[in-house]
Amino acid sequence: MHSEDEQAIRALIDTWMAATKAGDVATVLDLMTDDIVFMVPGREPFGKEEFAAISRSQQGLQIEGKAEVRELQVLGDWAFARTFLKIAIRAPNSNRLERSGYTLSVYRKTSGRWRLARDANLLSLG
Amino acid sequence: MHSEDEQAIRALIDTWMAATKAGDVATVLDLMTDDIVFMVPGREPFGKEEFAAISRSQQGLQIEGKAEVRELQVLGDWAFARTFLKIAIRAPNSNRLERSGYTLSVYRKTSGRWRLARDANLLSLG
Repeated sequence: MHSEDEQAIRALIDTWMAATKAGDVATVLDLMTDDIVFMVPGREPFGKEEFAAISRSQQGLQIEGKAEVRELQVLGDWAFARTFLKIAIRAPNSNRLERSGYTLSVYRKTSGRWRLARDANLLSLG
Repeated sequence: MHSEDEQAIRALIDTWMAATKAGDVATVLDLMTDDIVFMVPGREPFGKEEFAAISRSQQGLQIEGKAEVRELQVLGDWAFARTFLKIAIRAPNSNRLERSGYTLSVYRKTSGRWRLARDANLLSLG
């Protein structure tokens, strides 16, 4: 049995994946805090505006992801999760690319709603 | 002004760096929870036992690190931090290797003592 907060965070992850697949950038942006920090290997961390710019530049791609939550700890109005992600990316007239790996994410609840607040993404090709 | 908990976590990070430099694996192992999960790109997450094995295999190396805490949030008996790490590694008769990048780490306080509990390490060469 998951708590109400756990269910809300799992629903957020599912909505994120579905909106990404649908190319619905506005919905994805609404699932993160304004002060979000995205961390990926090999570059400086970036925020919501840069995420939006990257997403818009990828409008031609079909991105389909599957997330498996491996751990989820709710700590009051904050939470963290470890997730295994598998992502398939297909560009028009191009091969299918697959990436997989783990994320460590911090969520925050404000005004009764959970949002992604910090995200360390360790995915690599393969 | 940092809270007592913040000071304790910053001291933990400093102790970790000093013990790593000194090759004092026992001290480093005592700074992490028994259920710690280390996450790095390109491989499966691993725990305390594997960290110990890796550390023992690196006994010949001189590892000197500098950590800058970029964010630290204490959430009761849990906390998370974003840190910029710069590490210099020197093997006998070999060139100096440098790695730098960010970590997202989760800390836990048990019996009044803070320990590292989850660690996503995004460092890359260079």
